[in-house]
Amino acid sequence: MEKAKFKERTTKVLKSYLPILQWGPQYNKKTFFNDLMVAVIVTMMLIPQSLAYALLAGLPPEVGLYASMAPLILYAIFGTSRSLAVGPVAVASLMTAAAAGQLASQGTEEYYGAAIALALVSGLLLAAMGFLKLGFLANFLSHPVISGFITASGLQIAAGQLGPVLGIHAEGESFLEIVISLVKSISSVHWITAAIGIGSLVFLFAVRSGLKPLLLRLKIGPKVADIIVKIGPVAAIVVTILLVWGLGLNDKGVRIVGKVPEGLPKITMPPLDFELWLKILVPALLISIVGYVESISVALTLAAKKRQRVDPDQELIALGAANIGSAVSGGFPVTGGFSRSVVNFDAGAETPAAGVFTAVGIGLTTLFLTRLLFFLPNAVLAATIIVAVLSLVDFHALKVTWSYSKADFAAMLATIVITLIEGIEPGLITGVTLSIFLHLYKTSRPHVATVGQIPGTETFRNVKRHKVVTDPHILSLRVDESLYFPNARFLEDLINDKVSGNPDIQHVILECPAVNDIDYSALESLEAINSRLKDGGIDLHLTEVKGPIMDRLEKSHFLKELTGKVHLRHYDAIASINPDLALTTRKRKSHLEPLSE
Amino acid sequence: MEKAKFKERTTKVLKSYLPILQWGPQYNKKTFFNDLMVAVIVTMMLIPQSLAYALLAGLPPEVGLYASMAPLILYAIFGTSRSLAVGPVAVASLMTAAAAGQLASQGTEEYYGAAIALALVSGLLLAAMGFLKLGFLANFLSHPVISGFITASGLQIAAGQLGPVLGIHAEGESFLEIVISLVKSISSVHWITAAIGIGSLVFLFAVRSGLKPLLLRLKIGPKVADIIVKIGPVAAIVVTILLVWGLGLNDKGVRIVGKVPEGLPKITMPPLDFELWLKILVPALLISIVGYVESISVALTLAAKKRQRVDPDQELIALGAANIGSAVSGGFPVTGGFSRSVVNFDAGAETPAAGVFTAVGIGLTTLFLTRLLFFLPNAVLAATIIVAVLSLVDFHALKVTWSYSKADFAAMLATIVITLIEGIEPGLITGVTLSIFLHLYKTSRPHVATVGQIPGTETFRNVKRHKVVTDPHILSLRVDESLYFPNARFLEDLINDKVSGNPDIQHVILECPAVNDIDYSALESLEAINSRLKDGGIDLHLTEVKGPIMDRLEKSHFLKELTGKVHLRHYDAIASINPDLALTTRKRKSHLEPLSE
Repeated sequence: MEKAKFKERTTKVLKSYLPILQWGPQYNKKTFFNDLMVAVIVTMMLIPQSLAYALLAGLPPEVGLYASMAPLILYAIFGTSRSLAVGPVAVASLMTAAAAGQLASQGTEEYYGAAIALALVSGLLLAAMGFLKLGFLANFLSHPVISGFITASGLQIAAGQLGPVLGIHAEGESFLEIVISLVKSISSVHWITAAIGIGSLVFLFAVRSGLKPLLLRLKIGPKVADIIVKIGPVAAIVVTILLVWGLGLNDKGVRIVGKVPEGLPKITMPPLDFELWLKILVPALLISIVGYVESISVALTLAAKKRQRVDPDQELIALGAANIGSAVSGGFPVTGGFSRSVVNFDAGAETPAAGVFTAVGIGLTTLFLTRLLFFLPNAVLAATIIVAVLSLVDFHALKVTWSYSKADFAAMLATIVITLIEGIEPGLITGVTLSIFLHLYKTSRPHVATVGQIPGTETFRNVKRHKVVTDPHILSLRVDESLYFPNARFLEDLINDKVSGNPDIQHVILECPAVNDIDYSALESLEAINSRLKDGGIDLHLTEVKGPIMDRLEKSHFLKELTGKVHLRHYDAIASINPDLALTTRKRKSHLEPLSE
Repeated sequence: MEKAKFKERTTKVLKSYLPILQWGPQYNKKTFFNDLMVAVIVTMMLIPQSLAYALLAGLPPEVGLYASMAPLILYAIFGTSRSLAVGPVAVASLMTAAAAGQLASQGTEEYYGAAIALALVSGLLLAAMGFLKLGFLANFLSHPVISGFITASGLQIAAGQLGPVLGIHAEGESFLEIVISLVKSISSVHWITAAIGIGSLVFLFAVRSGLKPLLLRLKIGPKVADIIVKIGPVAAIVVTILLVWGLGLNDKGVRIVGKVPEGLPKITMPPLDFELWLKILVPALLISIVGYVESISVALTLAAKKRQRVDPDQELIALGAANIGSAVSGGFPVTGGFSRSVVNFDAGAETPAAGVFTAVGIGLTTLFLTRLLFFLPNAVLAATIIVAVLSLVDFHALKVTWSYSKADFAAMLATIVITLIEGIEPGLITGVTLSIFLHLYKTSRPHVATVGQIPGTETFRNVKRHKVVTDPHILSLRVDESLYFPNARFLEDLINDKVSGNPDIQHVILECPAVNDIDYSALESLEAINSRLKDGGIDLHLTEVKGPIMDRLEKSHFLKELTGKVHLRHYDAIASINPDLALTTRKRKSHLEPLSE
């Protein structure tokens, strides 16, 4: 009996940490063929992306392929989303380049080691956050900050790829630096490269915007049309490879991918260099969090369409495993990608096994197809990146945010501007800091309404918005915010202000239906308010205090020292102080002051 | 007519920025003699304090006297408190020593220059915060953090003064370093110095704890007794000066104050070295804020006793002026001191003119009495500091805070521990960061209750706390927190969780009476929730949304896309979805599921 229970519990825990145990047993022939078909499509989409993002990260192209095998398999084992496709993505690749570039120069062993270490430390951080249920840390990246950051990163990536597209050298750690570098070297454009690059750009934009309507007119289903559009880059790659090979353009100065080592990645121990780990801790954390935020929002969106469940903490563990797997197989940081996951979903992926088959597809590529990539011009890969990232750039969000909230707009704008000028890390850190600061600022000056009784009811409302009755001896205030340290002194000042000029007041009543917390600073402020009011001969009362807050107040001395009482309802407080006023608000008495506007 | 109005407005603005114009015209002979008497008492208390705090700040003793003249006069002009006494205080002096010590070694011109620059930059920062109404910045120092910081600073100051008391050399930038240094040099105690130092300590503690009861038994009024206790140190100073002079102890190795330059401070331009200003910006900001927090809480407490008004923003300007005044007259950072302000108040100071007279008293001291201080042993000044600061140490607060809030306790403990081990700045910064983080953490996991209808009412309550009726097709959730970026995703996850396993649900209703804000991140989360629920065939409704939030939601697309409706009351939402349930909760129907516990 005991044993059976233990087994049951163990199975439950195992299933929660290894979601594969949930879907694995139900796997059958139908799902197998379905997933296989999906894998073929995603593999074709992933090959050029993997190569391109590896180059974007400043790494040899095969590293992109390495990062698209182990991570997919590990995600299939640990991940809770049925549709998420992990692998190298644009923003994480840019962040990798920025972080590794601060430690070594591109092309060196140290640089590659730093990229691997970034994947490893990111993976460990993600897994640790998952086990410790620290997923909320990702919440500190507010939507406006992440959206601004991605827009700015997209611009920086696109600007950086204009160099390879035009065959010129341009570099820098921010959009601004890259643009300056581009302008300086614009005279040395390599025209053959530029022809290939710009040609590819035009083709890819055309595929993206014009191909789908065309296919639809040809009576091809919208989902299939979407998939054809997504694997369009393969056509550009095939054509340009043939072009370079046929015309010998590589001898005329067109930079090509060259020899890509064949074979599967070797499982290697990533560098166990703790000093290095410490140096990359902050960038690794930022990569983890940005990657996680992107990934989880894609996963939740796709899961909701089928009422499937995604467990955010388990997702951290899965992405952690994927990144650790990437590190030990010679890859760099990976996360769930938006467009490839949508393709996965639209193509009908039923289980994460589709990811495993995709990994097999990429594996076959590294075994047998890398020699075909020899003549692939870098300009085409750069063009595919530009087309992909420009869809990330969203200036319209600035306008929408502005109309909804000036504070959020400010955080977004600051993130964009600082990222464009100073680079990735300063931009992101500025955004996070500013959004926290603006929140604290907002709550530091909460909305406080003086309230009065609506005649004929037991309801109290803002004297400025409603026709209400008040008593000159009673000051009723409703605080529309939790009371905590940023606004604790505000309340002291406010009451000092309201009371100091008004000798009539004998009672101050705080109505607290929207006070969700009273921290120790606010408690001390309430004690100070109470004792100062007492010195002035005024009683302090509280009403509509929430249960959990009341529980805590009872542990403090405050309630013992409180000159007035705590009433369940505001009406009860008024009724106990001035029964006449409370009961007869229908017939106004002469001593009542009607306040309205 | 226009001219009169203009004059009236100008006068009003002038009076708000120059409070002296409010009380000055009513000044008369009675208040004059009253203030004069107060000034004599405060002067006697301030002389040893000024000398001691200058030494604590690592400066020559006369600098303490300089810092007790101009600032008092300027505060009298600009300050809004009738009782606050400004001047050098213990914690600000320690902070000055820590900041200046990082730029130069004590005794050098550069060190003195840095102290003056600290006063100047603090003054400018305070004044700027006042004019820009940025007083809320001080709120980021939560009560537990400031209380922990002052306890740790008090311990560090006391430890540091044990050196002079025992005649040994001990130094360090934190309590821990000082204690280690003390232990190392304990064998070289100078016994005559130690006799004077420890004797003074015992005497001063006796005055503090035993004199008042004695005086009360001698039928001396409690207020007078308090004042006698406060000027007790003067007796220790007079006796030890005579002792050193009479026995020639300075020739036997007892360190004395020595020659204190006579005469008033010269008005000098403080160093206009912007590089230096930039270096001291952070310490100057911390000194300003810590000083302001201390000062404003004393001012508010004393003002409340007489229902007087204190204007926090004007106080910033006044303290700013006081510090700038201190800088141009060769002083160091000053603020409102607790004990001297209480003496001021208890002795009956009626106007800030008492401060001006105190400044005159200190001025007369520097003109005629400094030669009397020649034989004053440093050990006595150190002893007065120890006695003063040990009253700042409050470990009991840890216990009280623990019982009220674990988060606040953690912030307090971290501030104390880090300050003791690492020093002042790291301690304060850790405390502020941690308290902000803990707040964000708390609000990132808000209390969300599933609610049901209390039978026979229109009221909805937590299903876990009350006997309520619910409908299996309706999920009613009450969110007890503002919705903003730290908890935006939490709500997405929560609803994903509640809905994913439950095919019956057709409606999700969010009750929002305690939602004081919905920022842009939360808006996007709500949009995501709405569209995901829509994909699953579920309608989303909102109820009891506050006016200001509704105003903003109306500016967004959210309401257009919302699958359900926004109802004023939760009851209305239930009534519109399931009129049967809403109306007939008295007679339960078979399809209703009673939930209670």
